[in-house]
Order: sequence, then structure tokens, then C-alpha cells
Amino acid sequence: MNNFNFYSPTFFVFGKERENEAGKYVKRFGGTRVLIHYGGGSVCKSGLLDRVKESLTAEGIYFSELGGVKPNPRSGLVYKGIEICKKENIDFILAVGGGSTIDSSKAIALGALYEGDFWDFYEGKRIDKALPVATILTISAAGSEGSTGSVITHENGMLKRAANGDALRPVFSILNPELTVTLPNYQTACGATDMMAHVMERYFTNTKDIEITDRLCEGILLTIIKEAPKALANPTDYESRANLMWAGMVAHNDICGVGRDQDWSSHQLEHELSALYDVAHGAGLAVMFPAWMKYVMYHDVMRFAQFAVRVWGCEMDYQQPENTARQGIAKLEQFLISIGMPVRFAELNAKAEDIPALVKTLGLGNQTLGSFVKLTEKDVTAIYKLAI
Amino acid sequence: MNNFNFYSPTFFVFGKERENEAGKYVKRFGGTRVLIHYGGGSVCKSGLLDRVKESLTAEGIYFSELGGVKPNPRSGLVYKGIEICKKENIDFILAVGGGSTIDSSKAIALGALYEGDFWDFYEGKRIDKALPVATILTISAAGSEGSTGSVITHENGMLKRAANGDALRPVFSILNPELTVTLPNYQTACGATDMMAHVMERYFTNTKDIEITDRLCEGILLTIIKEAPKALANPTDYESRANLMWAGMVAHNDICGVGRDQDWSSHQLEHELSALYDVAHGAGLAVMFPAWMKYVMYHDVMRFAQFAVRVWGCEMDYQQPENTARQGIAKLEQFLISIGMPVRFAELNAKAEDIPALVKTLGLGNQTLGSFVKLTEKDVTAIYKLAI
Repeated sequence: MNNFNFYSPTFFVFGKERENEAGKYVKRFGGTRVLIHYGGGSVCKSGLLDRVKESLTAEGIYFSELGGVKPNPRSGLVYKGIEICKKENIDFILAVGGGSTIDSSKAIALGALYEGDFWDFYEGKRIDKALPVATILTISAAGSEGSTGSVITHENGMLKRAANGDALRPVFSILNPELTVTLPNYQTACGATDMMAHVMERYFTNTKDIEITDRLCEGILLTIIKEAPKALANPTDYESRANLMWAGMVAHNDICGVGRDQDWSSHQLEHELSALYDVAHGAGLAVMFPAWMKYVMYHDVMRFAQFAVRVWGCEMDYQQPENTARQGIAKLEQFLISIGMPVRFAELNAKAEDIPALVKTLGLGNQTLGSFVKLTEKDVTAIYKLAI
Repeated sequence: MNNFNFYSPTFFVFGKERENEAGKYVKRFGGTRVLIHYGGGSVCKSGLLDRVKESLTAEGIYFSELGGVKPNPRSGLVYKGIEICKKENIDFILAVGGGSTIDSSKAIALGALYEGDFWDFYEGKRIDKALPVATILTISAAGSEGSTGSVITHENGMLKRAANGDALRPVFSILNPELTVTLPNYQTACGATDMMAHVMERYFTNTKDIEITDRLCEGILLTIIKEAPKALANPTDYESRANLMWAGMVAHNDICGVGRDQDWSSHQLEHELSALYDVAHGAGLAVMFPAWMKYVMYHDVMRFAQFAVRVWGCEMDYQQPENTARQGIAKLEQFLISIGMPVRFAELNAKAEDIPALVKTLGLGNQTLGSFVKLTEKDVTAIYKLAI
């Protein structure tokens, strides 16, 4: 096990009707002039936004608002949000939505306290401070409600990049599973896939003797595998929504990833896909993760066999463990298909002839991607081809 | 799943040699006048205490010290610590030791900011504030390094009682598994048993549809079952110590217990035992937990069957699930014996004729204990008898 620090100070407020406490918590965490940031559509139509505003008004808290966040959130709206913050002396950002809204809010929070271009942080500048961000989550997926990360696509060149820092951990996050029961099945499935990817990108590691985090990872995956199909079959089932919602947080606040090298190659391979084709992040991951696995499994067959046996209930083939390893990947792929996810390029309208462009935008050059297997441009090309 | 709040803001500093960073973190978290609180013996002899003092001195931090904490920590030393804090204007408490030292530190932290008797908080007074407490952990067991709780025995009547409050969460905790490699096997096993109890007291619940926390609980138990025997067979094995140390934290910061009714009966049944006979907490739990299980299993046979199958690898008896349930309890008992734990009264030098006194000190009267099954004095008596 590697040395590590773990710090997850977000106050989680979980359960039915908890969004009505938004004002109380904004006050407790020091917000006086709030920017409410959201996408649109269901957040407005469902009355959620009105309830949140009422809750702030009841506490006498000033607020401004900015809607319009889209999936794969863009830099344009971030610049707009930063401008509002500076003009209106905003001291607190309340994200009402899913991962895109939260990530956009985190970017605004960074830019609001920075003289330069917020994009600097997405090109590697160290994060020291940001406005406090809180969230009211409406989809179980990104884990951004408890994570240090934010992913934004810059419209100049359609670069999709991540920033990470403790200052980006939300101060509080309200998780009401009721808010997710109206999600279309495709979005629920995309969310489940994203959550699984967050776990698997921690699971496949070269670090040895990490039983505790292995077991936590497996527990989260087993939960998603059981609960996602229930939520899809019966979208208004509160209990499966609740299990998925907490699983999504635990999958990504790093409690299951500490003390080990992590490998976020699949996420990066997907980022290029969704930047180019604007596909849903979860759908892109469903295509890229099995492809990555098929390519790298020979590097540590026993780890893939453990994954197959413990997570997918495969029988161990003691004579030929690679059969078990392969079976685990096949089971993952079958599961993704069963919940309505694409698993091949064509289903995303992605094109084989774009692979060189995808690889180029990734910008590896002579460097490598990932840690489980260090991937060269040649490897990455082969993985994209496996996804055709 | 029940509505819940989850808040675990402790900054965890995990790994080899991390105790040398104590001064840096005390400074970061605002300590200027520190009380170092510890037991004695190994903490002094090993040089750990000296290294910690050097680390504080290097940062120019004033410190006072108070040693002498014993297992099942007593009120007498707490009063002494509170006096030091008030006299010396202490603003930060640094616990160097195991659960007893940390719990004693939390009690001092409470009393230092309170005009009345600190014991009020152990009789139910609501906790609003305490001095910041940080920990350098030397045994994987109590989970107090990440929890809201503290358990103290009052010398007036030998009452062992718990206090709980967010203000008791350590601000930072340093977890270096190297510090645990010199532990006698008996203490390692007691610690493992305590950790398992923390999980099981969350696991056996009447709350339905809690797959995510069930799976996390099971993952932690599976880890302890694998790693504790490795640590006992090879005490200097860093990796098993590291897995146990993180498991002990995750077992008790409540990440695996949210959203469900919990049942801490076994802990309370044990507290009476260890208060009367001064036995190690883990040893008392090894005796009381299987007894409690045997008594309550008929209340929810399928939950005990799930425990047996998922945690102990038992074959499910679909025709007679109670066979599986019983087998799980037997496997737990066998495991406890295998790691050198007592499982009967006689092994603790506890006496059957003291049972009425144990029940009386518990002080139930017409009330009940626990939530999974609400235990009357008659039930509690029967459970103590099962442990003979």
C-alpha cells in the first residue's frame, strides 16, 4: 500500500425532501451572496429550482442565477459565470444539477478568485483557492458532489480537460434520490456506467496488498450491478435510486482509491471521444473501458481474474486464468449492453477514420498515458481500434 | 434507506514515517499550545513520543504532556487533563496511542471548554464544542481516530459510558502501520475483533434496501478476516498492518453505517463486562457478540444467512436457511478462537453469578436495549447466560 492523504470534508445531506434545507446549509457554511448555477429543463419544470430559491429566500440570502449548462460543459458559460461573480460580489456557488453543472460551478468558483484565465487550472496550474461550492444533485453519476475534480471542454479547440484540488470539494452536497426518478433510462444507465468506471479506474493498479480498497471497490460495483437494472425496470423505485446515489458518491470521493496507483486512461480516451462527437460521457466509457481492458489484461491476468470472480461471479479457471479474466470482461460488456449502453464506435456514430485525429488531440507525443500499462500512441491507437 | 447526514472532515495522514509530520499538521490546524496525551510504555520506549515532541519543537509549538492512560480509560486522568488545559491555556490536544488514549483526549477536550463536570456529556448532554483533537494512532481497533465517539469509565461506580458529537471528530489523524508491528498478538486480535464488531453492529439492522452499505460492511469484514491472521502469523508484515489500519477507520467513521438503524447492544453488553472485570474491550466483544447473535438470529434469519454466505463463504441452505444462519455464527466464533480470542465467560474470569449485577448496572429497568431486537432485562440475562 502506498502512503496517502485522505480528506473528504463535504457535509452530505441525504434523503427525501432534503433540498428544502438548502438555505439552512448555505447559511451554516457562510454563504451570503449566492450564484445558483444549473442546466435547465427538468430542474425548472419540476419546480426544484423554485423550491431552492424559496429556501434561500426564507433565510434572507441574496442570490443571482445562471442556467444553461449542457452535458460536457463548456468554457463559454464558465466565463459568463465568473463575470457575474465578480460583478455581483458572489461569495458562494450553489450547483443544482448533475456532474456537468457541478463541474461548471467548480470552474466558476476557481475563476471568481483568480485574476488570470480560469483555464490555466485545467492546464495544470496548482489550485490554492476557490469560492465555496455546494451541490444539489439530480443524477447519480459523476461523483463530483464529493470529489476534488472538475472537467470542462474549452470551445477553443474542443479540448476536454480536468482540474483537481481540495478547494474544489463541495462544502455540502444534498443528495435526494427522489430527484432522480424522472431521469430517462439512458441517462440512468450512463450514470451507472460512469460510476463503475470511477471504481474500475482505481481497481486496475500495479500496487500490491490493497485488500481493503479492493473489497470496497468490489462492494460498490456489486451494488451498481444489482441496483441499476432495478432502477431501469422501475424508474420510480426510491430504494434502488438511493443505493445508486450513495454508491456514486463513494465511488469517487476516493475512499475506495487511496493507497494505490490509479489509472485514468479510459476516462482520458473517452474525453477525446465526447469532445469530438459530444456523446454522453457514460456512453463513451461503455465503449472505451472494455476495449482498454482487452488490450491491457495480459499485464496482470490474476487481477482481471479476481475482478471476474469477485465482481461477476465467474468460476475461476485455475488451469487457464486468462479464460476467467476474459470472461469477466465479457460479463462487463454484456452488462453494459443489458442496461442499454453502446459498446462499439458505430453506436456512438464515431468513425474509425477519426482515430488518428483522436490520438492526435490526446497529445501524447513521446509521452505515455496511464500507469497500469503505460500506453504509447501506438497502444492508444490499438485500443481505439478494438472499440470499432 | 433512511435519511441521514454524513460528515467526516478528519484529514487522514497515512503511511510510513508520517508521525514526523505531526508538528506541520498541528500548525496547519491552528494548534499553538498543545497537550500531548498518551499511555506510557511502548510510546515512550519506542522513541515515538520523542519524535513527536521534536516535530512540535521544530515548528515552534509549545507543549505540555500527560501520560498514564490505561485501557478502559478512567475519569480520574480526564479531570487531571482538564485541569492542565485550563491552567496552561491549552488550545489543542494531541493523542498519541490507541482508542483509550484518543477517547481520554476527547473527554479532556470536552471538559476544557466546559464549566461543569465533563461527565455530563457521558450522561447525555448535547455536545456543542470541544478543543480540537488530533491523533497519532498506535493500534488498529477502536476507530476513534475517525469517529464522533468517546467511551470513558467513571471511577465512581465503575460506569462505562459513551459520548458522541461531531465536535469530537479528530481534525487530523496520523496512521502509520509501522507503529503497530510491535503489538502483542493478543492486542492485535482484540483490535481486529473490535473492528469487526463496529461493522456488525451496523450490519444487523431492520432497515431494508441498503445494499451499498451492506456491501461496504461485508468488504471490510472480508478484509479483516484475511489480514488479521496474516498479521498474527507475521507481526512485522507492513502490508497486513496497513490493511487492518485503514479497515479500522472505515469500520467506524460511519461510511458503512449511514442510512440504517444501528444496534449497539453488544457493545453495551460488553461495556458492563469490561467495567466489572477490566477485560480488554475486544476480548469482551468476542464473548458477547456470538451470544447476542445466537439469541437474536430468529428475528431475521435471511439477514444472518446473507452474512454467512457473503462474509463466511457458507453454502446457502435454501430449504432451511436457519442452518446457514447458524453456520455463519459458528464460523465467526471459530474465527475468533483461531485468532486467540476468548468466546466464553470463564476465559475472561467472568462469573455466571455476577450476571444479575451486570444486568443491574446496565440500568434498563422497564426500558429496552437495541433496535434490531429490543431487548428487555430478561433477554439481556438470557444473552449473558449464552456466553457462559
